[in-house]
Amino acid sequence: MRMTLSQIAELVEGELTGNGELEIHGATILRDVQEGEITLADDEKQAERLTASPASAVIVPPDFTPEGIAYITVPHVHRAFTAIATHFQPPRTQARTGISPAAHINPSATIGANVDIHPSASVGEDVVLGDGCTIHSGACLMAGTVLGPEVTIFPNAVLYEDTQVGARSVIHAGASIGAYGFGYDTVEGAHQRGAQLGRVEIGDDVEIGANTTIDRGTYGPTTIGDGTKIDNLVMIGHNCRLGKHNILCSQVGMAGSCETGDYVVMGGQAGIKDHLKIGNFAKVAATSSLMTDVPDNATYVGTPAMAERELWPIIASQKKLPEMRKMLKRLSRKVDELAAQASSAQASSAQPDRSEAA
Amino acid sequence: MRMTLSQIAELVEGELTGNGELEIHGATILRDVQEGEITLADDEKQAERLTASPASAVIVPPDFTPEGIAYITVPHVHRAFTAIATHFQPPRTQARTGISPAAHINPSATIGANVDIHPSASVGEDVVLGDGCTIHSGACLMAGTVLGPEVTIFPNAVLYEDTQVGARSVIHAGASIGAYGFGYDTVEGAHQRGAQLGRVEIGDDVEIGANTTIDRGTYGPTTIGDGTKIDNLVMIGHNCRLGKHNILCSQVGMAGSCETGDYVVMGGQAGIKDHLKIGNFAKVAATSSLMTDVPDNATYVGTPAMAERELWPIIASQKKLPEMRKMLKRLSRKVDELAAQASSAQASSAQPDRSEAA
Amino acid sequence: MRMTLSQIAELVEGELTGNGELEIHGATILRDVQEGEITLADDEKQAERLTASPASAVIVPPDFTPEGIAYITVPHVHRAFTAIATHFQPPRTQARTGISPAAHINPSATIGANVDIHPSASVGEDVVLGDGCTIHSGACLMAGTVLGPEVTIFPNAVLYEDTQVGARSVIHAGASIGAYGFGYDTVEGAHQRGAQLGRVEIGDDVEIGANTTIDRGTYGPTTIGDGTKIDNLVMIGHNCRLGKHNILCSQVGMAGSCETGDYVVMGGQAGIKDHLKIGNFAKVAATSSLMTDVPDNATYVGTPAMAERELWPIIASQKKLPEMRKMLKRLSRKVDELAAQASSAQASSAQPDRSEAA
Repeated sequence: MRMTLSQIAELVEGELTGNGELEIHGATILRDVQEGEITLADDEKQAERLTASPASAVIVPPDFTPEGIAYITVPHVHRAFTAIATHFQPPRTQARTGISPAAHINPSATIGANVDIHPSASVGEDVVLGDGCTIHSGACLMAGTVLGPEVTIFPNAVLYEDTQVGARSVIHAGASIGAYGFGYDTVEGAHQRGAQLGRVEIGDDVEIGANTTIDRGTYGPTTIGDGTKIDNLVMIGHNCRLGKHNILCSQVGMAGSCETGDYVVMGGQAGIKDHLKIGNFAKVAATSSLMTDVPDNATYVGTPAMAERELWPIIASQKKLPEMRKMLKRLSRKVDELAAQASSAQASSAQPDRSEAA
Repeated sequence: MRMTLSQIAELVEGELTGNGELEIHGATILRDVQEGEITLADDEKQAERLTASPASAVIVPPDFTPEGIAYITVPHVHRAFTAIATHFQPPRTQARTGISPAAHINPSATIGANVDIHPSASVGEDVVLGDGCTIHSGACLMAGTVLGPEVTIFPNAVLYEDTQVGARSVIHAGASIGAYGFGYDTVEGAHQRGAQLGRVEIGDDVEIGANTTIDRGTYGPTTIGDGTKIDNLVMIGHNCRLGKHNILCSQVGMAGSCETGDYVVMGGQAGIKDHLKIGNFAKVAATSSLMTDVPDNATYVGTPAMAERELWPIIASQKKLPEMRKMLKRLSRKVDELAAQASSAQASSAQPDRSEAA
Repeated sequence: MRMTLSQIAELVEGELTGNGELEIHGATILRDVQEGEITLADDEKQAERLTASPASAVIVPPDFTPEGIAYITVPHVHRAFTAIATHFQPPRTQARTGISPAAHINPSATIGANVDIHPSASVGEDVVLGDGCTIHSGACLMAGTVLGPEVTIFPNAVLYEDTQVGARSVIHAGASIGAYGFGYDTVEGAHQRGAQLGRVEIGDDVEIGANTTIDRGTYGPTTIGDGTKIDNLVMIGHNCRLGKHNILCSQVGMAGSCETGDYVVMGGQAGIKDHLKIGNFAKVAATSSLMTDVPDNATYVGTPAMAERELWPIIASQKKLPEMRKMLKRLSRKVDELAAQASSAQASSAQPDRSEAA
């Protein structure tokens, strides 16, 4: 598995500076790299840590020239490093397994070519699986689910009735797609569940994280646009409509009937009130609570969230609050003194008048 | 599947205003409605959107009289619209399947009449299932679990030992009921797990969302009262006692040993400190962090949460903070000037005194 | 099952004050205790509730002397009460079941002695299970997973490829270990998934809560140190390195590449920005949003989180904000008045000067 630096440079089509005969036996990140290994540094700021490390070589971008170490310059550092790391630690290849006899498949299901279905996975009535799908152990596709080609459903994910998933999308372990929306009418003191006639429609090239939940719509669908990536433990409420190429970080919670444009980004744990509209390329910062619509391109931050440029002065002032409070008390005393002085001065200056009048 | 407006009015026992012969071929929400379809508008505020839409007819409540469109007036808009939408898109009927031979059922379990158990579901030792229960694929009922009649357990939900669930309750996909409470004693530097002798007891007509977790009690039970509805990804800590008809929105987190009254409502992502008591009809707003008890009927908001009427002036002031800070600085300068003037005035007015004395 | 108080005192090696012949038929917490039962009170503050309760006896620590009730004094109240409660309600004993024929086990797997594997559990290629492991129903160990001795995997938990778990660790229902890290490069408008070459490495005596998710590292591992306890619904991002004996409460979210020392504590719903370092014995308060490193032994609180001693004056001032705002307005008016007086006084005092000059 050893490679010389020249061989590595060739593999990644990079430009080598240093001894091409040097033998490298591993590729490891800066934090853990050992002598004889190659590492990566994607930013000049890492120069100091790099110098302090025992790395024998480093992959760098064109705008970083490290000193005292052999380096290979490439346009895409992470792409190159992935190739090298993959050489030294080839990831497990997953042989196609076909359809396990221990999977539970309803005879009415339509299964495409080259599909893997693992043991104890469950494929319900009228389900349709596109070519090249992989359904891992314990995943459950309830009746009427339709998957496009090359979809991967990881173990124990659950797709409720009639869920639709587009081509090449990936749904991670334990995700729940299409559970009932959380809407109730309270009739004579009891909460009665609203209609659950909608379903979830997921576009192409979507990724949905582990244990994330997306609820079905009331009458129409809850939709996730093409290319949108959703992290773990995210909640998407009923009737939401997410645009294309959104990025939703972990633990985001969106209440019902929200709409997002394309390329929206939400930081971890952000909370979104129901029925809001979030514009194209808008950002909601991590842990913010959004209570208003967000225009295109805006970044909203805080609780309640507001435009970034409005928030920072407030945050800055908040840190000064105890100081402001002291200042205010001091000022108040001083003004009282001044007022007292002024009124006694007025009184004393009035006296001569009176004495004059006398 | 087409119906005339007269037929639709008859179906929902509503009062039609407009052409009863008009043919309708679908029922769709305002956002997506097309010509030839009926929609719903539950609030006069939607009048403008309704006028702009291509809808051919609309379901409205008695206090809303739309213009330029046929309408059917009903007392319960959503109930009526559900009936109509169900006519046009009949939901999948779930035929009773009985007990799958691919389910794993301990011979000591007691199974009621008309029970469905799907493939790869697991029913442990001494489990008791009431009549009409549905246990979906991969759901796991560990030893001693007792379900009342007509309970539904969705795929891959897990009920730990001795969990009790009342009549007609529904537990969604991936929920975990009865995992160990998170309490440790630190002995010689190692965290030792506390007692886990309690269980979880869930009342009648409860609904528990997908991937929600409810931990077992330390010595006694963690309890969820009748009619309480819990959304997805909620955490209920060990020893909590929830009252009846509570509504807990998604991602709420309750630490251990909290108690709630009846009809409590918690907004999404609210966090509740351990050992708190929340009164009847109390509300905790979304994303709030509750650190104190809440009296009956109160609404608590913010971090740390306080009574609503206390919070809003604070929020309003916070937005004014940068302005307040500037004002304070300006005022401070002004007071210093006044003080300087006053002392120089005193000095100059003192001089005459001295000259008089002279 | 009845015991006399003397027998109970003997069982827990405690010192009895009161009638040793008294018969006790149950052990219940203060909230629910009935006559004829023993309860526990671990703090003098519970004296009033204890007096008001129908309990027949109580377990107390040495520094609490209750009145009007028989009591047993012990050094460790909870340990003693657990023993008594266990006597009255013996927990279900879990007979070893061995390897179920309904489990799905790849022939290449290596299974230790005394291992239980329940029905529909899935054990993949090259998996290694240490002696005494328990794999519950529906749990899925993907290819290359390695478990040390006496590990327990609860139902429907999923361990992705090559996950490593140390001795005696416990992973609760629905947890997802090793799903893909949430990192993307955006290339020509599409988000492309980064490398997923790392895995998750979990130490000895770790506990991971229900539906918690821990993502695999990019090139190297995501690691959880020995003795660390993680509650339900927690998110640990890719490349994180947690130290030993950490305590992470429910719904904590850690973004990628964070590092913690030993004995770190994070309260429920705390959110941690990516790439932060948290020192030994540091604490992050519940619902805080951490955006900076935390030194050893420090407690950080708030959003954005800061050292506790800095935050409390700010919180205190925030509550005074509306009052401060009123004060500021009043002060401003007063200063304006004083300034007006001063300038008119100057004007009038200037007049005599002029008249003198005249």
